[in-house]
Amino acid sequence: MTFTPTSFAPSVYLERLHKAQSIVASTGIDLLIVGTGADFAYLTGSWMSSHERLTALVVPAQGDCRVLAPQTDYQDLFSSPLGEIGVEIRGWKDGEDPYRSAVEGMAKPERIALGSSLTADHVLRFQQLLSHAEFSLATYALAELFMSKDAAEIAELSKAGAAIDAVHDAVPQLLQAGLTEAQVAAQLHEKILREHAEVDFVIVGSGPNGANPHHSFSDRVMEHGDPVVVDIGGTLPSGYHSDCTRTYIVGGDLDAAPAGFTQAYDVLLKAQAAGRAQAIAGSTASEVDEVTRRIISDAGFGEYFVHRTGHGIGLSTHEEPFIMRGNEVVLQPGMAFSIEPGIYMPGQWGMRLEDIVVVGDAECICLNDGPRELR
Amino acid sequence: MTFTPTSFAPSVYLERLHKAQSIVASTGIDLLIVGTGADFAYLTGSWMSSHERLTALVVPAQGDCRVLAPQTDYQDLFSSPLGEIGVEIRGWKDGEDPYRSAVEGMAKPERIALGSSLTADHVLRFQQLLSHAEFSLATYALAELFMSKDAAEIAELSKAGAAIDAVHDAVPQLLQAGLTEAQVAAQLHEKILREHAEVDFVIVGSGPNGANPHHSFSDRVMEHGDPVVVDIGGTLPSGYHSDCTRTYIVGGDLDAAPAGFTQAYDVLLKAQAAGRAQAIAGSTASEVDEVTRRIISDAGFGEYFVHRTGHGIGLSTHEEPFIMRGNEVVLQPGMAFSIEPGIYMPGQWGMRLEDIVVVGDAECICLNDGPRELR
Repeated sequence: MTFTPTSFAPSVYLERLHKAQSIVASTGIDLLIVGTGADFAYLTGSWMSSHERLTALVVPAQGDCRVLAPQTDYQDLFSSPLGEIGVEIRGWKDGEDPYRSAVEGMAKPERIALGSSLTADHVLRFQQLLSHAEFSLATYALAELFMSKDAAEIAELSKAGAAIDAVHDAVPQLLQAGLTEAQVAAQLHEKILREHAEVDFVIVGSGPNGANPHHSFSDRVMEHGDPVVVDIGGTLPSGYHSDCTRTYIVGGDLDAAPAGFTQAYDVLLKAQAAGRAQAIAGSTASEVDEVTRRIISDAGFGEYFVHRTGHGIGLSTHEEPFIMRGNEVVLQPGMAFSIEPGIYMPGQWGMRLEDIVVVGDAECICLNDGPRELR
Repeated sequence: MTFTPTSFAPSVYLERLHKAQSIVASTGIDLLIVGTGADFAYLTGSWMSSHERLTALVVPAQGDCRVLAPQTDYQDLFSSPLGEIGVEIRGWKDGEDPYRSAVEGMAKPERIALGSSLTADHVLRFQQLLSHAEFSLATYALAELFMSKDAAEIAELSKAGAAIDAVHDAVPQLLQAGLTEAQVAAQLHEKILREHAEVDFVIVGSGPNGANPHHSFSDRVMEHGDPVVVDIGGTLPSGYHSDCTRTYIVGGDLDAAPAGFTQAYDVLLKAQAAGRAQAIAGSTASEVDEVTRRIISDAGFGEYFVHRTGHGIGLSTHEEPFIMRGNEVVLQPGMAFSIEPGIYMPGQWGMRLEDIVVVGDAECICLNDGPRELR
């Protein structure tokens, strides 16, 4: 990150580390190892990255946590919340063995859980050193920690929602026939930066390009009446992300849209609204997916809705809970995720409608306010 | 990446894949699995990233290579060089098992090598599926491929060197007493973007902050005569990186520098020149480290040179060959890396001098041309 990240009070991270340790102990894990990235930032308040040099948070079931980091980088940690809460920050120098140092003096672990972001170079070296231990993924243990956002986090996600809504407000006047997707994307890039610390992604998928859900942008020249999928997101200084999709018609002339497009869009609107209505405490992630998918399938578009309904969002753009078939996690107040069904007709057009919601007891809070209607 | 990456001709990637396959076969590996990132881009020409969804290149010792990617993203691959060279691009949908699909129909592998960027979530799932296989790191096998750059790559690195030199040209007039490091960093950010497609990092370490080799920038107000370490880098549209460090004195007034600073800088200049002189075919990486380190140690600053001498550079900012003790790789023409010794006096000041060089037979080519003298 090139911006100066902000963080919460040190006590927040102390509490998160305590909670992590109690989850580790209660799930029969001896040691949790978390590499840099969003999980590390969630637990320590630090976004440091040391590239190929090992930096990791080590959380034993009993005893003190430790952060291992190269000496070239570890001074930053002392000025992070981590420094204030008194977690051991252990430096290592080029030529030393950081893997041994990471676990030195701790009880010999039998069951080790790894954060998903740790890369193969580190995973295999830990496995070599601790060859008798059983390694598993800490994905679900960590998700338990961060899936339900607290009030300060929801405030940040809410700011992120408002920031990206402000960018979408400007989209209709940018979508002029004769411009390329890339020209529009460049303008969106600037506008996202005005409202965020960083641009995460810009998708401008016009005409047939809209049928590729993860198209970025191209030199295709937009024509009057082309449907355009605009999916944009950025990062606030706090590290929290925005992510919002609207579908537009170039020139705003709905009558010029391709045959059948507005009818399909009505289906999408209903499906997305049904997803939001289902995003309440006690539902499962798979039920939210199921209600949106059923409406789209019943209208005959099932095979053209080729992805899951949504993904959690926080310090990562994509995180648990994933809103998809097979994910039986029970929704709890404070969980934040996208609801973003889409319909993609290969070679013709695409459409997607995405809001970030926070689960409530009786209804969800929707963090994106821009008009959902085609315009 | 938010820019549109460029790539070489499809035949370049076909040749690289063939070479990868022959390295795999000759090192007794049955299967090489490479996740997204620089290694993947080197072999396929594609920078696609699918976040938490598995995207991987699978290279068997015998038979055809395969790329596995989520269907939401894989359309981009067909328009990449990969699409043209006829490698199988296999899509998978949310809810399917991509790990099984990645190796389906291939001979049962006993020895599997992993690219270092594959993350723990994917590593452990492959290990679970192929539980009888032995997993190792492909770091060195892959390094064999990309360490020596071809002419087109050297041309890109050379462009990158010129781009960052142009930014350093503007630094002396930016370093005004009374400005904060962050103010200077913001201007450097803009200037790097003018010459590159992306900003990789900006370090402005003034006074005591210079003693932290990986300091980024802070609100510290710079004073006349402060030494300032400026280490900056960016990415070209081709994906090749720049990385160059110079040390400056605020106001350009060398007489105002801290006591002993200019004398120490003379040592650093000599050490870095000796490193460049050693960067020739037949030397080892550790010998380059040794010559720079010896000059600094002989002058009494050994304990204040706390990092390795350098790192390879290409599609990654940091890659093999690492110029450090213990790395006995023999340098070959075309290898590109940084030579960047530094001296760091905790609480007082820091200095570093970094150029990117390309190994030659009798002498190296230096890709950075800016003055190395203190100014």
